[in-house]
Amino acid sequence: MPLPRLTLAQYRDGILARDRAVLARALTLMESGLPADQALARDLLAAVLPHTGRSLRLGITGVPGAGKSTLIEALGAHITQPLAVLSVDPSSPTTGGSILGDKTRMETLAQSPHAFIRPTPARGHLGGVARHTRESILLCEAAGYEVIIVETVGVGQSETAVHQMTDCFLLLLLPGAGDELQGLKRGILELTDLLVINKADGDNQPRALQAQRAYSSALHLFAATAPPVLTCSALTREGVPELWQTIQSQADRTRRPAQTLAWFEELLRQTLWQRFHADPAIQAIRPALEAALRAGTLTPPQAVSKILDIQPV
Amino acid sequence: MPLPRLTLAQYRDGILARDRAVLARALTLMESGLPADQALARDLLAAVLPHTGRSLRLGITGVPGAGKSTLIEALGAHITQPLAVLSVDPSSPTTGGSILGDKTRMETLAQSPHAFIRPTPARGHLGGVARHTRESILLCEAAGYEVIIVETVGVGQSETAVHQMTDCFLLLLLPGAGDELQGLKRGILELTDLLVINKADGDNQPRALQAQRAYSSALHLFAATAPPVLTCSALTREGVPELWQTIQSQADRTRRPAQTLAWFEELLRQTLWQRFHADPAIQAIRPALEAALRAGTLTPPQAVSKILDIQPV
Repeated sequence: MPLPRLTLAQYRDGILARDRAVLARALTLMESGLPADQALARDLLAAVLPHTGRSLRLGITGVPGAGKSTLIEALGAHITQPLAVLSVDPSSPTTGGSILGDKTRMETLAQSPHAFIRPTPARGHLGGVARHTRESILLCEAAGYEVIIVETVGVGQSETAVHQMTDCFLLLLLPGAGDELQGLKRGILELTDLLVINKADGDNQPRALQAQRAYSSALHLFAATAPPVLTCSALTREGVPELWQTIQSQADRTRRPAQTLAWFEELLRQTLWQRFHADPAIQAIRPALEAALRAGTLTPPQAVSKILDIQPV
Repeated sequence: MPLPRLTLAQYRDGILARDRAVLARALTLMESGLPADQALARDLLAAVLPHTGRSLRLGITGVPGAGKSTLIEALGAHITQPLAVLSVDPSSPTTGGSILGDKTRMETLAQSPHAFIRPTPARGHLGGVARHTRESILLCEAAGYEVIIVETVGVGQSETAVHQMTDCFLLLLLPGAGDELQGLKRGILELTDLLVINKADGDNQPRALQAQRAYSSALHLFAATAPPVLTCSALTREGVPELWQTIQSQADRTRRPAQTLAWFEELLRQTLWQRFHADPAIQAIRPALEAALRAGTLTPPQAVSKILDIQPV
């Protein structure tokens, strides 16, 4: 049984009073598909808006096994500010288990009073998850979290969205230069502000440094403003203080107004698109149009023209 | 003074009879913004559709000076099929001059009876140019051109669109590995099916081979299916026959149905968006909404809600 809804004032006051239970319930409200919840969620977001914007927003991505959870624990132990961690991982169940089934992930951080960890809801399509994550960031900021980490698995479609909602987008890699990147989505480097090679400890140290050189020179081949490449060990915490320094200097809050406008545009386009396709006549004609396009018996301008005959300008 | 419009039958018959003057006028018709022209253009495209689809569609991009025109001349001299060249270059004037002001570009090819060269119209925003290029490809195919090259300068926003309309997307580079890529749009490698290092002749040969190795290993770092990296000299024509072989083997016509559906989706979204913004009430409210979003006094869901109050679902 889900808990009953609170009032707008209860949500708002609870969040501003840094009540973690209320924050958690407000995040659930944001993810709700019910129209009444959505209206309340919109009002709540507006109510806390004056209290948002003061955090550092960090995106972290990397294939399973790269050590994202361990790195987040290491960063959490190093920094003194309150930290919220939001996962955008369509494969992750509500238990918070990663797709590797690691049951102990972020165990220490989860017990810290300064940290708030929010696993991804299992239901809901990815676009929805990413959209609610923007709202979740704002609620967490209103609740006083000064560092927000948005974590993704780096193999899905969510990286562009996460890049569009953070001040710094970090790609975490393993020392075996190359091999582990093959699981990553092509084009992820375009989004990367900071590339970090993890597990640079013990016997892995030489390989990590070699990987650092390889990635650095490869990145310089392909981009005018290549992102920095660092090494660290999330396990031994070597390099973690330097990493945090670099994250702070790379974080670019000046892109936020553009991100907000892009969020608006995207939401508006989505809403228009959904509204358009809610028309049963459009739903009825679409499969036949797509089949004809696929078969090459209809041109795209003709198909658009046929649809506009149904919903005229 | 522009030439008067022909009838649908005149355009169609002229194109199918491979009349280059009629083809040129039909391409101009496609680019017209007049509603009457657009209706005729749509009908013409539908009329020639059964005669399309039989060409190899090749995209070529690279910074100014990489040697795109010389390479196209070299390919044109090597292949025996009729060849059409379409430029998607917003900086290029109607004279066909490149942005380097190279007045002699494709001079030999321009005189060949087997080749048809279509420079970009100077007017028109880029999205429009790219959209008309899809239509231009179909008309050229109907006119019997068996190889269609779509050329872009590689520094603009058109590369994704060109990738979405070709069977093989070729990135042309200079031997000075790295330097010239800094002018390219970040993310262009995501689109590249084939990377070619030009000017691999004379003293440049060692540098070209070195660049080939550097790009090959960098690409293998970043992608599971790295595109092949070739060298050639468009000037001496060394490597051009091998390049043509590789283009033919890399060309992937199986992506065409998906490209057609994507074209349809894009055109439909654009049309809906334009239709929505044609509402004067929407135009009137938008600047205030954007200013409030930028200032952080309004949330994107609120802004969308205010717009839907004007055009209710």
